[in-house]
Amino acid sequence: MKTVGFLSPGAAATAIVALISFLELVYARPSPEPKVPARVQWSHNRGKKIARTALRGALDGRSYNTTASSTCSTSEAVSIIAPHENIWAGLTDAEAVSIVAWLFAQPELNLTATEDAGEWDNTILLVELQIPNKTDVVSHIDGGAAAPARYAQVRLDNRATEDPYYQDLMVGPLPLADSTASYQPLDYPLTRKTSGKVRNLDADSETLSSEWIYKIGAEVADITLDLWGGTAMGLDNDTLDIWGIDPLWQDDGRIVRWDMFWNLPEDEFDAETLLPLGLYFKSDVTGRDPSQWKVEGWLYNNVFYETTEEFRAAYWSGSIEKLKANVEGSWARTDPQDVSLPYDTQYPPTTIAPSGSRFGVDYERKYVEWMDFSFYIGFSRDVGMTLYDIKYKGERLLYEFGLQEALAHYAGGDPVQSGVSYLDSFYGFGPFAFELVAGYDCPEYATYLNSTFYVDETTHTHLNSICLFEFTTDYPIQRHSTSAYVSATKNTYFTVRSVSTVGNYDYMFSYSFMLDGTISAEVRASGYIQSAYYTTGSDFGFKIQEALSGSMHDHVLNFKADFDILGTANSIQLMKNIPVSRSFPWSNGKVRNTMQLERSWVENEDQGRFNWAPNNAQQLLVLNKDETNKWGEYRAYRVLPMSGAMHLTVEDSSNLVNAARWAEYDVQVTRQHDYEPRAAHPYNSQDVHDPPINFAEFFNGESLDQEDLVVWLNLGMHHVPHTGDLPNTVFTTAHAGVQFMPSNYFDMDQSRNTVNAIRINYSNGTATDVATFGQKDDTCELNFTPAEFNAWNYHGDVVVRKFPYDPNSPYYETDAIV
Amino acid sequence: MKTVGFLSPGAAATAIVALISFLELVYARPSPEPKVPARVQWSHNRGKKIARTALRGALDGRSYNTTASSTCSTSEAVSIIAPHENIWAGLTDAEAVSIVAWLFAQPELNLTATEDAGEWDNTILLVELQIPNKTDVVSHIDGGAAAPARYAQVRLDNRATEDPYYQDLMVGPLPLADSTASYQPLDYPLTRKTSGKVRNLDADSETLSSEWIYKIGAEVADITLDLWGGTAMGLDNDTLDIWGIDPLWQDDGRIVRWDMFWNLPEDEFDAETLLPLGLYFKSDVTGRDPSQWKVEGWLYNNVFYETTEEFRAAYWSGSIEKLKANVEGSWARTDPQDVSLPYDTQYPPTTIAPSGSRFGVDYERKYVEWMDFSFYIGFSRDVGMTLYDIKYKGERLLYEFGLQEALAHYAGGDPVQSGVSYLDSFYGFGPFAFELVAGYDCPEYATYLNSTFYVDETTHTHLNSICLFEFTTDYPIQRHSTSAYVSATKNTYFTVRSVSTVGNYDYMFSYSFMLDGTISAEVRASGYIQSAYYTTGSDFGFKIQEALSGSMHDHVLNFKADFDILGTANSIQLMKNIPVSRSFPWSNGKVRNTMQLERSWVENEDQGRFNWAPNNAQQLLVLNKDETNKWGEYRAYRVLPMSGAMHLTVEDSSNLVNAARWAEYDVQVTRQHDYEPRAAHPYNSQDVHDPPINFAEFFNGESLDQEDLVVWLNLGMHHVPHTGDLPNTVFTTAHAGVQFMPSNYFDMDQSRNTVNAIRINYSNGTATDVATFGQKDDTCELNFTPAEFNAWNYHGDVVVRKFPYDPNSPYYETDAIV
Repeated sequence: MKTVGFLSPGAAATAIVALISFLELVYARPSPEPKVPARVQWSHNRGKKIARTALRGALDGRSYNTTASSTCSTSEAVSIIAPHENIWAGLTDAEAVSIVAWLFAQPELNLTATEDAGEWDNTILLVELQIPNKTDVVSHIDGGAAAPARYAQVRLDNRATEDPYYQDLMVGPLPLADSTASYQPLDYPLTRKTSGKVRNLDADSETLSSEWIYKIGAEVADITLDLWGGTAMGLDNDTLDIWGIDPLWQDDGRIVRWDMFWNLPEDEFDAETLLPLGLYFKSDVTGRDPSQWKVEGWLYNNVFYETTEEFRAAYWSGSIEKLKANVEGSWARTDPQDVSLPYDTQYPPTTIAPSGSRFGVDYERKYVEWMDFSFYIGFSRDVGMTLYDIKYKGERLLYEFGLQEALAHYAGGDPVQSGVSYLDSFYGFGPFAFELVAGYDCPEYATYLNSTFYVDETTHTHLNSICLFEFTTDYPIQRHSTSAYVSATKNTYFTVRSVSTVGNYDYMFSYSFMLDGTISAEVRASGYIQSAYYTTGSDFGFKIQEALSGSMHDHVLNFKADFDILGTANSIQLMKNIPVSRSFPWSNGKVRNTMQLERSWVENEDQGRFNWAPNNAQQLLVLNKDETNKWGEYRAYRVLPMSGAMHLTVEDSSNLVNAARWAEYDVQVTRQHDYEPRAAHPYNSQDVHDPPINFAEFFNGESLDQEDLVVWLNLGMHHVPHTGDLPNTVFTTAHAGVQFMPSNYFDMDQSRNTVNAIRINYSNGTATDVATFGQKDDTCELNFTPAEFNAWNYHGDVVVRKFPYDPNSPYYETDAIV
Repeated sequence: MKTVGFLSPGAAATAIVALISFLELVYARPSPEPKVPARVQWSHNRGKKIARTALRGALDGRSYNTTASSTCSTSEAVSIIAPHENIWAGLTDAEAVSIVAWLFAQPELNLTATEDAGEWDNTILLVELQIPNKTDVVSHIDGGAAAPARYAQVRLDNRATEDPYYQDLMVGPLPLADSTASYQPLDYPLTRKTSGKVRNLDADSETLSSEWIYKIGAEVADITLDLWGGTAMGLDNDTLDIWGIDPLWQDDGRIVRWDMFWNLPEDEFDAETLLPLGLYFKSDVTGRDPSQWKVEGWLYNNVFYETTEEFRAAYWSGSIEKLKANVEGSWARTDPQDVSLPYDTQYPPTTIAPSGSRFGVDYERKYVEWMDFSFYIGFSRDVGMTLYDIKYKGERLLYEFGLQEALAHYAGGDPVQSGVSYLDSFYGFGPFAFELVAGYDCPEYATYLNSTFYVDETTHTHLNSICLFEFTTDYPIQRHSTSAYVSATKNTYFTVRSVSTVGNYDYMFSYSFMLDGTISAEVRASGYIQSAYYTTGSDFGFKIQEALSGSMHDHVLNFKADFDILGTANSIQLMKNIPVSRSFPWSNGKVRNTMQLERSWVENEDQGRFNWAPNNAQQLLVLNKDETNKWGEYRAYRVLPMSGAMHLTVEDSSNLVNAARWAEYDVQVTRQHDYEPRAAHPYNSQDVHDPPINFAEFFNGESLDQEDLVVWLNLGMHHVPHTGDLPNTVFTTAHAGVQFMPSNYFDMDQSRNTVNAIRINYSNGTATDVATFGQKDDTCELNFTPAEFNAWNYHGDVVVRKFPYDPNSPYYETDAIV
């Protein structure tokens, strides 16, 4: 049985004792016994060529002993020590506690503890590490400079004012000392210079529910009861719900909502987004005084009514056709049904790790080494997991690689679907990176890490929310046959993964590393679609149920790839395959129709926004012009789209205005600046005309020639849901990915460095030589145990209060966006 | 140990006894004991709804017995009986023998047995089943009509003439009877109506070697010895080789070759295509009289010399710079080298099948059933494996799905690279679909089938050359998390695979089937690149070694997908996501920037050739306009590009002229005709101006509205080899694929039909319910044995002579393109 990340069933009691034992896992994870020297050295044997003949150790198959010689291993990753601290790992417990206490001690901030706060109080939304500037970090880890001073990023929700606003502050330096501690507005990473402030359109969310939305629900309860036999009035026995557009309409100085009625599921299944009811209302909620808010109209069956009275009159006059409701049924439930597939109750094929884990992890520092790769893992509230300092064979390839923002831009014939363009970092990927299901989300033998995020003066810990594992595909990475021999090499890769379920959708983020030096990022989408009521025809989707339309939407997910290819002086070369007609010295003067390469440079940021060429005709190469291989070619990494759509269909979106300019192109390249660390701000949706970060403003003509470059890559999917999206979208086709592969970076394919290869020489029907290059050649015994056995160890999130600090009273609580 | 497809090592002797026992496997494969009723019925339980509550059988994890209760299974696929004969399976042994004998009995054919034949004799190249017309087959298998009459396709090599030609004949009906047997020209499947004849440019290949190429090699031996210390004269101790363009230049009524010198590898590795030497010569070899052939020039270091004398004079005058040779080294060898990766000698993760195989195979008829899918496997000399009659849940989706042709179009600054555009069916995919390496090419637990092809009055059998297996990915097909439960479903799929190594390149063809009803086809490329000598600059590739350039080339592989979606009356709908500015009843007269769907039909063949839209914006739906689901939407299958480039860069290729018009677009749709069964003919390269099948001629404006349609899909890769292609290209990035996924075809996602799912309800840190839906819930023991143990059972091909028929003297012989 695995010992880390899972407790034995007996310990899964609710007593505090067990919780404390749990916290030992969370906060002081014990290191498993190392099986090899703690620090795997990059240098071991490197450069020491092994004579080729020595590699030819033939496997003497005839003498194989197929009697099991040992028990297969189930070891977790070997515990190792990172070469330096994880500078991106987040605040320590002590730091977080001290910062919160210090903030509450600053009277001018006028803070109220979240659980005591009302809508007119100021609260702390976030206390997190302010990721140090790259410039300072690189000077430290590469140049031996002192470690950069640590600061916290604090996000305040200042609502004790007529004009509520969020504000980002920088607090520090850490550790806080009375003589040096201070806070300052954090706007250097923002394009908008308003002291880190952005208005809060959500300040009155409770009043909006209790005094506005539910009152409107009550006002039309006669109709909702008549239509659907239920109400949405904020009562426990409500069977209806009301919610609507995001972002809110922000034109002409007004804040306008469109909301709609939804049916609630009848059971535990999270199917509400499949149950729209087709009645919409518009309200102007500008300002903080509910008495000034006003209903501006109703929409039902494509007819707009200017007032509630007008709508009610029409309704009860009988002139309105009563439309069908969407009601939960088995079509909306994810449990298996109609199960009768042949052999399906037998075990399906399952990947095992007979030698246990073959990689190293510094569990405390979240540092990973697999084969010749290494990287650090960061985790933040806004974007979840980010990888830092990704090295291969000791050379940094990427300083930072991670998600920036995810957009789900809907369209529709009704105002709610038309008005929804979720910018998911508003909700955050960190808070919803739930515990993974071993054997389903990742192989059962994976190594699982925890992640933490701050909310409401507490720290939540997602147990087992990051998984690390090796996997071997069903095809080799290399093979070749002749009439005399066949050679092949196993394709074993390494993946780090987390899944964030932001409301209805589950995004799976996988970063993978391959034996040839390739790195990939992939995103898959499952979970429940958000659907539309079917009254607006086929322009925006398919009819997929009784009164339901799949609501078309584009997913666009932006990733920051801060490449450092052989240093930070990098350039982008484009190389295109083009048809050409030309003659040659040997073509007798005749013109030949053939093809050739056309190379160009992305000279500056004016050229820095572009799309992948049709027919995949263009390569993008990241390189340092001063670093060529021994044949004179640039040592490059190629950025290679794998699958999926890449940019947003909508042009100059009315919903987004300037809030997601990053979604407009497939690829965007900027010069790296410490003041442009993020493509998006989580509160961009609060002021779409003038958002905290307007990505388009990064592009101001700067040179991209031998500069430190960032490549901002979009992955996405055009999703027009069909019946196959019911009850959930499947990960298999909702998939986008990108690869970074070495191109002339090494002298030859690096997958030649693995021994997990075979060469069989054969002649006259007999294998005459089987070379296996030193692979393990005995057998081992194992007891195959279905992963489901461990499912009872699933726990959800652990919470520890930070203010007042109460480390000895942790409790379990998992929050989701309902 | 597996018992089918592998012999025990002790039996691997060379004696006839063992060979005969082998043949029992090949020709009378024993059926394993069936474990379930032989025929898995589609109808079992279908339509009989199982109450949802009954599915909620919770897994009582606490009572799990983790003591192994049994030994894990290693069973092969269950032996089943196909619902009808495999009409596409090929000739029986008896049929092939009778046809060859009958052909030799027709005096006017003037045939000579291949082993006795010279260049002026007629020989039989191919005796294979003439695949019956779809119209007749469908009438038979669906309509109950009599089975179509069987005919053989015979390909003759008629060289006993000044104008040698290949000819396709149809011979039959089978079984042959004196009264009815006849042969007739087989040109109904060809666009060129010349009685199935096409000229043979290869008729004098032996003379070309002995009397031309090697004599030229001898003539310049002084220079080759001086430059490279070797000769290419057809001698056993030659260290050089000479070969060149394909197709030959065919302009102006002349047949012109460009050949070049290559170094031979110094050992067994198949590295010759990495060893060009940069000396080229042109010769006119029109006609069959070598005395009329003439050398027309030499090229060295980009200088063209009109005669051998001119070249020699320049060479010995010292005015020519002597360029470096490409010599084999470790960079060209696929064996592991510099092996020092941490933990690499431990077992990597490996997939096992603890319940054994979970699918059915009719081994004799090559019919497969997995979950709700079924299909038949055909195999031919020209294109290798083809799938027929692919059904899902009892409904045919595709009548035929398979490779048509693979083009590798090179370009370069020298005449040989510029002139190479391999059309690989000339060589054939069948003859080079070598034995697979268990545990590398496919999982070790796969079920392996043999395949056979005809050559030189013999039948060759590739042992274990088709593999069938299930596999489970490292991610689920579905998942969703909430604060109260998490659900996930395993993504287990089924693959049928073969690998054809056509000379230097290994093409892996994988057809996969998924639980949601999706089918995919993927091709990957590994093996040795064909490279260029580095004297022509960077327009056509990178410098990748001492004197070597990666020679840029496009792979384009055409697949025929003969869809029958709910019958043969099908139409193609295109649905595009487009940006739009429009106002709505509720938008206050304001125009909103959003997006919508734009639908259109591919009305006729004039519109039938097109490319995938940029940004993956357009969906292609195959459907029957008369078949809608209960919501009124068309029940369609969507064709969805997965990855890779799709069409040829070169426009109107000088090399190909009309021989590969199929490569010009990503997608091409035609009306199905029995007389247009194939996109290409293997001898298209013999007359590129007027090839036997000019695909462009399929497009003649016919209606595509509710007709039987064929979708011809291109998969491909633009390959600009870099150092990472040395020694072999890696499968991981050289990859292209396409998926066919249900779109409104069913009422909901079909992956809900598997029990391999889990739902964990949790609360306050405790799992409160774990539902596993009837999954197997015990453990089993297994002895993990590395796949390498079985490598000594690798055999290669078995050959049986058909004329004279000698079934009792089989022998082993594996041929490759050297």
